Amino acid sequence: MGNALVTDFYELNMAASYLRHKMTGTATFSLFCRRLPDSRGFLVATGLEDSLRFLEDFAFDEADLEYLARIGFAEDDLRRFRSLRFTGDVWAVPEGTMVFADEPLLEVTSPIAEAQLVETYLLNQCTFQTAIATKAARCRIAAGGRIDIADFSIRRTHGVEAGNAVARLSAMCGFVGTSNVEAARRFDLRPSGTMAHSYVEAFDDELDAFVTFATDFPDQATLLVDTYDTMAGVAHAVTAIRALGLEDRAAVRLDSGDVANLARQTRQCLDAAGLDKVRIFVSGGLDEHDLARFIAEGVPIDAVGIGTRLGVSDDAPYLDTAYKLVEYAARPVVKLSAGKATLPGPKQVFRAPGMRDTIACRDESPPDRAVPLLELVMTDGKRVRDTPTLAAIRSHFESQLRDLPDEARSLVSPVVPVAAMSNTLRNLDDEVRRRYSLVGPAKQEG
Amino acid sequence: MGNALVTDFYELNMAASYLRHKMTGTATFSLFCRRLPDSRGFLVATGLEDSLRFLEDFAFDEADLEYLARIGFAEDDLRRFRSLRFTGDVWAVPEGTMVFADEPLLEVTSPIAEAQLVETYLLNQCTFQTAIATKAARCRIAAGGRIDIADFSIRRTHGVEAGNAVARLSAMCGFVGTSNVEAARRFDLRPSGTMAHSYVEAFDDELDAFVTFATDFPDQATLLVDTYDTMAGVAHAVTAIRALGLEDRAAVRLDSGDVANLARQTRQCLDAAGLDKVRIFVSGGLDEHDLARFIAEGVPIDAVGIGTRLGVSDDAPYLDTAYKLVEYAARPVVKLSAGKATLPGPKQVFRAPGMRDTIACRDESPPDRAVPLLELVMTDGKRVRDTPTLAAIRSHFESQLRDLPDEARSLVSPVVPVAAMSNTLRNLDDEVRRRYSLVGPAKQEG
Repeated sequence: MGNALVTDFYELNMAASYLRHKMTGTATFSLFCRRLPDSRGFLVATGLEDSLRFLEDFAFDEADLEYLARIGFAEDDLRRFRSLRFTGDVWAVPEGTMVFADEPLLEVTSPIAEAQLVETYLLNQCTFQTAIATKAARCRIAAGGRIDIADFSIRRTHGVEAGNAVARLSAMCGFVGTSNVEAARRFDLRPSGTMAHSYVEAFDDELDAFVTFATDFPDQATLLVDTYDTMAGVAHAVTAIRALGLEDRAAVRLDSGDVANLARQTRQCLDAAGLDKVRIFVSGGLDEHDLARFIAEGVPIDAVGIGTRLGVSDDAPYLDTAYKLVEYAARPVVKLSAGKATLPGPKQVFRAPGMRDTIACRDESPPDRAVPLLELVMTDGKRVRDTPTLAAIRSHFESQLRDLPDEARSLVSPVVPVAAMSNTLRNLDDEVRRRYSLVGPAKQEG
Repeated sequence: MGNALVTDFYELNMAASYLRHKMTGTATFSLFCRRLPDSRGFLVATGLEDSLRFLEDFAFDEADLEYLARIGFAEDDLRRFRSLRFTGDVWAVPEGTMVFADEPLLEVTSPIAEAQLVETYLLNQCTFQTAIATKAARCRIAAGGRIDIADFSIRRTHGVEAGNAVARLSAMCGFVGTSNVEAARRFDLRPSGTMAHSYVEAFDDELDAFVTFATDFPDQATLLVDTYDTMAGVAHAVTAIRALGLEDRAAVRLDSGDVANLARQTRQCLDAAGLDKVRIFVSGGLDEHDLARFIAEGVPIDAVGIGTRLGVSDDAPYLDTAYKLVEYAARPVVKLSAGKATLPGPKQVFRAPGMRDTIACRDESPPDRAVPLLELVMTDGKRVRDTPTLAAIRSHFESQLRDLPDEARSLVSPVVPVAAMSNTLRNLDDEVRRRYSLVGPAKQEG
């Protein structure tokens, strides 16, 4: 199966042109976020796993080439594309690592045509996955281990592929389950779910619906109490839970209205009935700010399903990412476009305690007490290590979260840590720009 | 291949419970949007084509059933799931139809377990596709046929599936091309693209890059002029275009800075050089508001690539859609939840000229001069007509656009037309609610 047509058209034109002119020099492209959305104090880097799989599988199949012939590519272009594979190296920060503006998530070094052709897919995956993981991390921060959070987003994500990614990314960031069954299977997650209003409505009365469902699924008896009158629903739930002896296992779910107030009334009602172990599950358009409010106000909510706002990262559905050429044929290059200038050369990010970062040239030595963030993850088109498990990524994420400065962690008006630039990188940047301005980009090697 | 696990976990629990209790009565579910985002004056209904394909293919395969056994479903549940297919009817508005709050995009009528199990996928597709198509339609309205618009979103969409959908939906709403090659192949669209900054940087100088590219692709010679100094880039483009005799075919592209101002300067420079047929192509974080401004201010821009903001519908990345049970076993049902109440029974929407709509019971006669929007598109699990071509959908969309009232069409603070409710529907709603309040939902059949 070819995957190479998952690309912007111009990548194909440029690659064909490079190959026609024997421009097979080694290029390094750097993928980074220029500026974080105002509401974000950090990003959780992800998308690497899918990117590596794409690079390993990168190829044009015969049907792809036939299509390219039809839209005008020459026979010689197709011959070159037919044998093309990704043969380069990839440096990347591990998934779950927190990064800030201008810090590479990933760098690709390969013959320029290859690195050019994979741009679109890598940008697509790293951008949307990082946007979603960051939203999930904010929910995890808000829940603070005091409210269980589950992914309920699949009905509102931008397609099924996105929904599956959201389930994986939210699990990576501390969610305890997902409603998405296909994703639960694929990533070995805990399937999570309750019942819908339609179930309650399909019965002649609410109590009958509750008793039937709780009899069928005694270990998953989360009874949805707000189809008609919420507190009457709670009373029916109490009756059903007692009748079936599910005092230790059952829960009730609130999905509409002033859920904070209803949760308090519900807790009172349950406790008064001796059902102090029955949990309260809440859903309905909630996000990290609702979670923070519930905790700040001591609202008795045990678990929350987060759907839409997580699934599309509604307040920051995209990131200002870029995949930029930084070196070609051993020549560091920059772009000078207004507001979109780039830094030259392959890079490393060194992180000192407290997430004090320095963006440096790749081959520099780390400053005192600092560790490099980017690792060599692929060489000659092959992965150099096993894929980390989701549990390992989650543990890495949690350790990152412990180091995150408070002002970056803030859910409201966060302050993004600003990485320093190493002297070596600054000198290289000055030098490249000086040469460009003196003699134009044409002669900067002179 | 099974597709039935693309679902929320609770659908499986509810379906298993219905089937255990021989609740095989016919249910009708209605899919609609409760409230439009503030920035939207209309919605362009889409997602039907993918929904129908899903329903036709609906099945659990053996691997699906093995997984369900592993997570606790009983052997009898699996036996019932194994033979389950979608055997119902679907009424829907054709893709490209404009709809407003509370108007069904689609209604499913089938044995309740089937209609319940397909909820998640139908909501997923109809929600995100309608959100994206609506954004595309706003761009089409802003461009007004005076600026060509192309889809450049694939690098920022939420995955590849989403990117392909965006290409199709934007074509449906008047875009003239897409940068997404896979989507261009799949939907027979015009691939559109220029060159990247990396291409220019890979050459020793900009003019050399332009001459090489324009020689290789004389019919697609859109030269990106802002890698270093924009007006110097325009001068290089002029030289290259003249040298190769591409005065009738070439274009230049601006991707950064104050593009309106730069476009004016570029136009002057091109015209002064006698290149009045060379077009100006602009990109870089643009949306419908930029298009409207360009046209209002007479900025000489011929074509625009719209990427990120279209691809995620950044200002309204989701819709408040619902898929609600409205009838079960010939009994109209409603939900009374605060802010989320539903109307009972299968429905029709009648549209009078000027998009004056009436939401009615399905079997009512249309008011004077009004036509029904929902059509029977699937019966007994089979489509009742051929899939409309993209050209036919586009033409339908354009005719809808001509009828859209000005206040709904407005890009800023639009006013959403409010559908009337037929007397018959109002009476039914009153009756169902009265019975619920008198004797509880249990006894509303009297």
